[in-house]
Amino acid sequence: MTKLWQGKSNKKIEKFTVGDDYLLDKKLLKYDCKASIAHAKMLKKIGILTDEELVKLEKELNNIIELGKKGKFDIKMEDEDCHTAIENYLTKKLKELGKKIHTAKSRNDQVVAAMKLYEKDEIAKVKKLVNSLISSLNKLSKKNIAMPGYTHMQKAMPSSVKLWASGFVESLEDDLKLLDNALDIIDKNPLGTGAGYGVPLKVDKEITKNELEFKENYKTSLYVQNSRGKHEAIILNALVNVIGTLNKLASDIILFSMSEFGYFSLPKEFTTGSSIMPHKKNPDVLELVRAKYSIVLGYGIQVKGLISNLPSGYNRDLQLTKKPLMDGIEITKDCLEVMELVVSGLKVNKENCKKAMTKELYATDKVYELVKKGKSFREAYKEVKKKL
Amino acid sequence: MTKLWQGKSNKKIEKFTVGDDYLLDKKLLKYDCKASIAHAKMLKKIGILTDEELVKLEKELNNIIELGKKGKFDIKMEDEDCHTAIENYLTKKLKELGKKIHTAKSRNDQVVAAMKLYEKDEIAKVKKLVNSLISSLNKLSKKNIAMPGYTHMQKAMPSSVKLWASGFVESLEDDLKLLDNALDIIDKNPLGTGAGYGVPLKVDKEITKNELEFKENYKTSLYVQNSRGKHEAIILNALVNVIGTLNKLASDIILFSMSEFGYFSLPKEFTTGSSIMPHKKNPDVLELVRAKYSIVLGYGIQVKGLISNLPSGYNRDLQLTKKPLMDGIEITKDCLEVMELVVSGLKVNKENCKKAMTKELYATDKVYELVKKGKSFREAYKEVKKKL
Amino acid sequence: MTKLWQGKSNKKIEKFTVGDDYLLDKKLLKYDCKASIAHAKMLKKIGILTDEELVKLEKELNNIIELGKKGKFDIKMEDEDCHTAIENYLTKKLKELGKKIHTAKSRNDQVVAAMKLYEKDEIAKVKKLVNSLISSLNKLSKKNIAMPGYTHMQKAMPSSVKLWASGFVESLEDDLKLLDNALDIIDKNPLGTGAGYGVPLKVDKEITKNELEFKENYKTSLYVQNSRGKHEAIILNALVNVIGTLNKLASDIILFSMSEFGYFSLPKEFTTGSSIMPHKKNPDVLELVRAKYSIVLGYGIQVKGLISNLPSGYNRDLQLTKKPLMDGIEITKDCLEVMELVVSGLKVNKENCKKAMTKELYATDKVYELVKKGKSFREAYKEVKKKL
Amino acid sequence: MTKLWQGKSNKKIEKFTVGDDYLLDKKLLKYDCKASIAHAKMLKKIGILTDEELVKLEKELNNIIELGKKGKFDIKMEDEDCHTAIENYLTKKLKELGKKIHTAKSRNDQVVAAMKLYEKDEIAKVKKLVNSLISSLNKLSKKNIAMPGYTHMQKAMPSSVKLWASGFVESLEDDLKLLDNALDIIDKNPLGTGAGYGVPLKVDKEITKNELEFKENYKTSLYVQNSRGKHEAIILNALVNVIGTLNKLASDIILFSMSEFGYFSLPKEFTTGSSIMPHKKNPDVLELVRAKYSIVLGYGIQVKGLISNLPSGYNRDLQLTKKPLMDGIEITKDCLEVMELVVSGLKVNKENCKKAMTKELYATDKVYELVKKGKSFREAYKEVKKKL
Repeated sequence: MTKLWQGKSNKKIEKFTVGDDYLLDKKLLKYDCKASIAHAKMLKKIGILTDEELVKLEKELNNIIELGKKGKFDIKMEDEDCHTAIENYLTKKLKELGKKIHTAKSRNDQVVAAMKLYEKDEIAKVKKLVNSLISSLNKLSKKNIAMPGYTHMQKAMPSSVKLWASGFVESLEDDLKLLDNALDIIDKNPLGTGAGYGVPLKVDKEITKNELEFKENYKTSLYVQNSRGKHEAIILNALVNVIGTLNKLASDIILFSMSEFGYFSLPKEFTTGSSIMPHKKNPDVLELVRAKYSIVLGYGIQVKGLISNLPSGYNRDLQLTKKPLMDGIEITKDCLEVMELVVSGLKVNKENCKKAMTKELYATDKVYELVKKGKSFREAYKEVKKKL
Repeated sequence: MTKLWQGKSNKKIEKFTVGDDYLLDKKLLKYDCKASIAHAKMLKKIGILTDEELVKLEKELNNIIELGKKGKFDIKMEDEDCHTAIENYLTKKLKELGKKIHTAKSRNDQVVAAMKLYEKDEIAKVKKLVNSLISSLNKLSKKNIAMPGYTHMQKAMPSSVKLWASGFVESLEDDLKLLDNALDIIDKNPLGTGAGYGVPLKVDKEITKNELEFKENYKTSLYVQNSRGKHEAIILNALVNVIGTLNKLASDIILFSMSEFGYFSLPKEFTTGSSIMPHKKNPDVLELVRAKYSIVLGYGIQVKGLISNLPSGYNRDLQLTKKPLMDGIEITKDCLEVMELVVSGLKVNKENCKKAMTKELYATDKVYELVKKGKSFREAYKEVKKKL
Repeated sequence: MTKLWQGKSNKKIEKFTVGDDYLLDKKLLKYDCKASIAHAKMLKKIGILTDEELVKLEKELNNIIELGKKGKFDIKMEDEDCHTAIENYLTKKLKELGKKIHTAKSRNDQVVAAMKLYEKDEIAKVKKLVNSLISSLNKLSKKNIAMPGYTHMQKAMPSSVKLWASGFVESLEDDLKLLDNALDIIDKNPLGTGAGYGVPLKVDKEITKNELEFKENYKTSLYVQNSRGKHEAIILNALVNVIGTLNKLASDIILFSMSEFGYFSLPKEFTTGSSIMPHKKNPDVLELVRAKYSIVLGYGIQVKGLISNLPSGYNRDLQLTKKPLMDGIEITKDCLEVMELVVSGLKVNKENCKKAMTKELYATDKVYELVKKGKSFREAYKEVKKKL
Repeated sequence: MTKLWQGKSNKKIEKFTVGDDYLLDKKLLKYDCKASIAHAKMLKKIGILTDEELVKLEKELNNIIELGKKGKFDIKMEDEDCHTAIENYLTKKLKELGKKIHTAKSRNDQVVAAMKLYEKDEIAKVKKLVNSLISSLNKLSKKNIAMPGYTHMQKAMPSSVKLWASGFVESLEDDLKLLDNALDIIDKNPLGTGAGYGVPLKVDKEITKNELEFKENYKTSLYVQNSRGKHEAIILNALVNVIGTLNKLASDIILFSMSEFGYFSLPKEFTTGSSIMPHKKNPDVLELVRAKYSIVLGYGIQVKGLISNLPSGYNRDLQLTKKPLMDGIEITKDCLEVMELVVSGLKVNKENCKKAMTKELYATDKVYELVKKGKSFREAYKEVKKKL
């Protein structure tokens, strides 16, 4: 069954405009149902639906959620997206009643509602994984093993596994602040704002807001649409920071696992062989985590790019913010999970670390011994330098 | 069956490292088979394979191509990619002989060979679509209808549909130069370079080069790997330019189709309705083309980003250049196809164009009438300005 | 006078490594002096400096601030940056005492301290300008004039100047949250962390933290360096959002000021003429604001790009985060200032807005009249659509 | 003196719209004069100027070029850019004759003409520097010293300084192709196309094309403006590739100069000391080259971003393409120059390279010894692997 509100169209163009939405929307199905239930409750309160009608709609929408869980709710290309698939399903099941569900909403506010519920859940998942990685890093940092500290990729001063690992914990704590801030900004109820210019009915946004546990309502209906892309980019920026922390962590472990260093080693089952060189144990997992920083960064730029130079109000361009966001979220979660494994399994080779603590690392200490004896810092520095 | 050259591994990490490759590689299957056939011919010439062995391998590799066409050749997640799937298949079918096919190659040069054959075919397809759009634009430009020319999004001087459409033709001609240049740069045979450091066998690269119709051989084995990502980014840059031309074309048509202008209109079957507003005929197709510029731009940045700060030689990061390139190619082809439809179907509303030719468009003409009568340009300009 | 701690160097390479720092650092001079005063106070408390020495250093550092205000403190190319210029100045004035000021610090923590003080001041300035633009928009939104609301750049439903302007206020409120979050994240005292591995002296970070009014101390010395670039990118992301709001505001005003719409007009003194067309009044100011979104976005990518794939600890690459940040800040402030002028001076042409309220804008209202009479939404929609 | 064609304007807004143009245009001054001379010759041929007038204009324009060389031609902020400064100067010197120079041109085609002449010169300079670096790399590659070859940043197979250096030569050869392609695309004469819609006079573009040695004329006047930004981005893309080659070269040298490797060392005068650690010899110059890849990449994105979603014809946004292009060119030239110094001065530590040729590098050789004895490749591989 096709879109109820659409006339005939060119097949090629229809395929092009639908794009991946019918596939991506599997992730949104349950959220759209939940938002529709909340919306139906509101419609009942303002007298559009009867008690009985609400019960029926709620039942069918919960059915769809269950079907979705089992992978049995189809969103066909002809449906275009989950929103139409759901309206079609309800209309088939409930006849005239199904045709009432779109009262006082537009696909525009509906898409935003489903996206926001999805985003809130996903941010929570990312935060949980970040916290889990923090725990593993904290465990690792208990190994108070000395190792060289580098600046300019040159041995600089004495460091330790503890200091090294704690630096990443502090970075992830900053990332959590970004995630919380993103959540705080996007956590607004869009229902009742129609296509951006309200609906000619007296809707009660407090009801849907409370039902869906949004922090607040949008103040202006137009901004619901103007914030699309902007809000997704804010989330992606938080994710880029998370994965940026992982990029540095992976870069360090790759470097320090080279045979020339040997400070760390990866469990064999975390490494990959070569098709030509039988001796290789490659850190593919870390190289991929490293590269995925640029992937998520690129997704952020896609979103920030496509909203540029666009006038107010919904423009179809915004539909293309969905995929970069969803991919960005999946990648970030995957990377957090594997890095948690890597950190938990990382072997620190105490002997190699110790051997690497060569004397140039202590040059600054020597300066300070002279400072303690009364030399000015710069004079002490010069004296030590001369003797090197 | 799993990778022949790999020990045990962690499931989660394996899934992570395989990523989408086993799916993306459907596009590479036939190219890898072709490259393997060329490689086998070379192995025969240097005495590694017998005539009979070559015949058997060639037959099975052609079988795989046929199976692939019918969608009957499976690349499983456990295979990791098409290259291993093929080696596994050959080994199953041909026993010891299958185990010989990897002689004198590495997955590293093999992946590059398949990618380059794929890229060459796809660049040719994109060029064909560009030329087809040029034809449609040339047809449109035969409508020598006057319309306003704009600068700063303000009426400036008289223009015409002919001038407007011809501008896009010239832009696409530049894009063709970029595509040709990309082709010229990437068209090098990588076979025989192993993992970047050659193979300890006397291989004859001229044979594979000629078989696969590469323009030339790579000069240095290391650069085969160092050019990964770089070459993909060069192709993506050509694509970004193509789609940038479409972005401007779409932006213009969207603007000039607004009811406030009415110069153009889209056939009804190219427009999309609204779920809430029964009167809407929205140019979704053009909005999506417009937005896809940023998508492809972002893909280019992903590739250019992930190769930064990496040392020489293959790094697994490079595997992630495959998806942005393939998606970028698909998007560009789709956009070219739909824009060809749009340009062919575009209605120019002669009356509206004529009405829009208001007098301010002729202010510069008035200046030049005075110039022709002997006034200096700047004095003539001032005189006309004063009278406005 | 050159760097006290440097041997001979190649002229061309020195010029290259210094880059623009000696120019950019004019902005940092006073902040570095303030941080040095706080640092000196700490050195006194831990017994490195006497009361008298502190007084002398404080006096000279305040002198430098005063000289800087008058543009009389030179930072020469040979000095490399403000930090060395200051140390050189103090050593010249105070001899041995000047050579003590670098005790317990490194240029690495010093640069971060000056940057953070600068950043905190600038974020406060940006916030003030945002609030000022909010006021102007609020004033504008008092004009409750009806105007068409657009979706897909097509007339959609009735809107108003009030709704339009309020949307930007809500967007700027989100931007303020991003600015506050950036401030919250970066507001940490880096002094006492040396080059990232501490200093071999018992320093008291509470003193410098309180003197400089930082919210808290960094927890790990290594993260002071690892957070470079990351923190600058977080600020730039907040700025990109601010300027993204301005991009949409400018895009709307440019569109709605076209003669085909005529809803708005810019005061003549805000427009620019053409060298060839005497009639032109171009909205250059708005076009530049629009374009500057991409400029600031690009600066953010520069910073996010250059920190990728780098190992822990200070790398000189990080020095290049200074210019994109400083430019991004200046651009954002400039754009906010001119947009405040534009919004304050914007003329709304009531008559043109009224004329533009054509009947298709009310199609949805008609649907809802039928809904109120008991039709299901989708049936009502179909009925109205048929009659169009 | 201010713009002759401009009315009163708001000071703040004027300062904002002028931006850096009056500074950047120092680089364009001579090119604009040359283009103006060519234009004047054409005006003479079509009868707008007399022989005598041409002589006078040519003399004054050559004067300006000479003044510019000596740094004595001022472009003031009030002039806005070099084009107005020149027109002002000519009008002051030659009275009515000066007011004729703008006949049959617009600032729009004039800016493009000057930019293209500048770009052609600069591309030639970049190419020369690339060729010079190729020579140094070729010299270095004569040192046929064995060193380890890496994949996944793990020792892989035997390599050599020759192979390593030659890889960069081949990369730079690709970059030269990109530079040539960029040149081929941009090398078009824009004069005579006015603001994008021609001029109401019969101009002879062949004359200016030949005078200025452009390869060809633009086919459509509108595309002169539509190609702005696009052409600059094509040049920047070639530059990003050049600097990408340098990024990898710098990354390798930094890595292989670490004390843990010691394959290479930099001459002491190419390194930088630390303010706190007396022993440090840091490769700052290489770290900065590495980071500048992201800077130039970001500039490319600025240009590609700001042209997105813009309708046809000149929009002031395009003015902002000048700075990223000019900065990108300067950075690339600087980096090429210093890398030429680095490569020429690079010391290869033969002993350290030799020591690093450890046995795992020869595992693949062992496989091939078995292959030569008749084992299938995969069986030989397994046998060697088992024995490791």
